[in-house]
Amino acid sequence: MTAHRPVAPVENLPPGTWVSAWAPEGFPEVRPGDDLATLVGDAVAAGSTAALAEGDVVVVTSKIVSKAEGRVVCAADREQAITDETVRVVATRERPDGLPPLRIVENRLGLVMAAAGVDASNTPEGTVLLLPHDPDASARALRAALRARFGLDRLGVVVTDTAGRTWRDGLTDIAIGAAGVDVLDDLRGGVDAHGRPLSVTVTAVADEIAAASELVRGKADGRPVAVVRGLARHVRAGDGPEADGAGARTLVRPSADDLFREGSAEAYARGLADGRAGAPA
Amino acid sequence: MTAHRPVAPVENLPPGTWVSAWAPEGFPEVRPGDDLATLVGDAVAAGSTAALAEGDVVVVTSKIVSKAEGRVVCAADREQAITDETVRVVATRERPDGLPPLRIVENRLGLVMAAAGVDASNTPEGTVLLLPHDPDASARALRAALRARFGLDRLGVVVTDTAGRTWRDGLTDIAIGAAGVDVLDDLRGGVDAHGRPLSVTVTAVADEIAAASELVRGKADGRPVAVVRGLARHVRAGDGPEADGAGARTLVRPSADDLFREGSAEAYARGLADGRAGAPA
Repeated sequence: MTAHRPVAPVENLPPGTWVSAWAPEGFPEVRPGDDLATLVGDAVAAGSTAALAEGDVVVVTSKIVSKAEGRVVCAADREQAITDETVRVVATRERPDGLPPLRIVENRLGLVMAAAGVDASNTPEGTVLLLPHDPDASARALRAALRARFGLDRLGVVVTDTAGRTWRDGLTDIAIGAAGVDVLDDLRGGVDAHGRPLSVTVTAVADEIAAASELVRGKADGRPVAVVRGLARHVRAGDGPEADGAGARTLVRPSADDLFREGSAEAYARGLADGRAGAPA
Repeated sequence: MTAHRPVAPVENLPPGTWVSAWAPEGFPEVRPGDDLATLVGDAVAAGSTAALAEGDVVVVTSKIVSKAEGRVVCAADREQAITDETVRVVATRERPDGLPPLRIVENRLGLVMAAAGVDASNTPEGTVLLLPHDPDASARALRAALRARFGLDRLGVVVTDTAGRTWRDGLTDIAIGAAGVDVLDDLRGGVDAHGRPLSVTVTAVADEIAAASELVRGKADGRPVAVVRGLARHVRAGDGPEADGAGARTLVRPSADDLFREGSAEAYARGLADGRAGAPA
């Protein structure tokens, strides 16, 4: 087997012009109560304390965070688990063959996801996995432990999940937890090469890191951890709330501000009922 | 100035466990009629024909594609340009200070975007830029020219744009054109480490490549091209339609299938009007 090695910087390129990512193989099955920071640290270290460098971002799937935190419930209760995680039903779609309807809901974390983010793949038979209770807190804890173990000042952590999107087929990974990373890169006030205000203003950096990490991790082959190097400009140094940052919760748009807070069919049906009931104009 | 160099592979790591990306500096301003393949080739080559390798993906912003293709119109016509690009209005939001309403629309390409993707940043004063006429065709042409210039068989091209999302703040880059890349990675039929069917089935690989490229390109500093290495499993070899692939158009979900095909307020208003008019149940 080829030895695991730290992500090599792309040599002879100026800082800020390259990014590299690496996902160690052979990550062990995670069980409730496991110390996630130890498992992640061991995986990226592979016998070396130079495995992580200043400015790195460690990306982990929410699945391994949930498993370590014991967020497993019986699969017999899957629909109930979805209901329990639901704050607000956003849209539903009937499914064939007597399956319960697909529910797209806003969950406890403010995330709008199919099945509330309740996961039935890559879990032991008869169980489903809930999202971590507080993925930003999980990211902060992992960041603190990895900074201590590797003696680093500037380190970021992102916790990912896989989500569908409106209007586009296919799933991408998004950031549901973060620490030590600027989750949004606010370019407002900046100007373009012509001196005109930039109309593209706020980039969801943490979501792009999550997407990039999925490319290197893949889905099916036991590589739930990635190290992303080359983004030190987005990574914070030091201890405390200021260094941890606001977390991925910042990426959640409040539903009151969202033009798509409710499914089209659901909104139409509500309007139709109100119209029939003689709602005032 | 540090010399531009090809993206170095991450050494001593097994294939499939790393990805690296590089965005050359100093890309020239693109003008209508410029040969984009020559400009992109020169930028990534930097004097070396080894700048691109088998399995690489070359990512370019739609902005430079549009500029080379002369998709510039007068800024005085911006609202008219948005109207002209619009196939269907999806949602609108009033804006303060007498600005015209923000229009989220489905455009000619099937993309649901604010302002139809009409861009007013990084363009000469008094002009706006439309999206490329056919970004998949642009990607195919760029792929053919770069394969010929660098003598490569296996090469991918992705054309990106920056888009907002429902439910989440911040923008990410998505793929609006593609050639030689599997834009979707269909894992249906696969099983997880427990032998259970994978519930996460179809990954939007090209969108994740676009997002990763944005991390290394940034927005404001003249680096509209990135080379992504390490994803050869998603990159096709050879000539012809089969090798070019279905393109990024495949990522567009038909609006009839979308639970959010219409803004919540618009759908509600339509229902309300129908209800008042006595629409049948």
